Amino acid sequence: MCEANAYLLKGDKEEKVFENVDRLQLHEGGLLLEDIFGRRLIINARIKELALVDHKIILEEIDSE
Amino acid sequence: MCEANAYLLKGDKEEKVFENVDRLQLHEGGLLLEDIFGRRLIINARIKELALVDHKIILEEIDSE
Repeated sequence: MCEANAYLLKGDKEEKVFENVDRLQLHEGGLLLEDIFGRRLIINARIKELALVDHKIILEEIDSE
Repeated sequence: MCEANAYLLKGDKEEKVFENVDRLQLHEGGLLLEDIFGRRLIINARIKELALVDHKIILEEIDSE
């Protein structure tokens, strides 16, 4: 399976926020992530980087300005 | 391997623009894609959707306004 884990950048650290992500869509200015079991996470962030062979999705928070 | 293919939305059609994508990064308002062989594509687009189990990255063009 080619799911990935989602990490949110906090300063220079990566904090894992969701595992086994299959689908990701834009959602009301942020993102909707869905894992391989159909569980969902809505997060006020955008994609900064993908590293698919490493199974990583790196997210960064959106400033609510 | 868990690379994916990148498709650019053209109306309601998906046109494959790059295969075997491993890494993707934000780059000067658009995206820098790198495949598993180290080849790179810079594209004026953003991620609309991921479907990792289906090995798909769906991109949409950025209006140059």
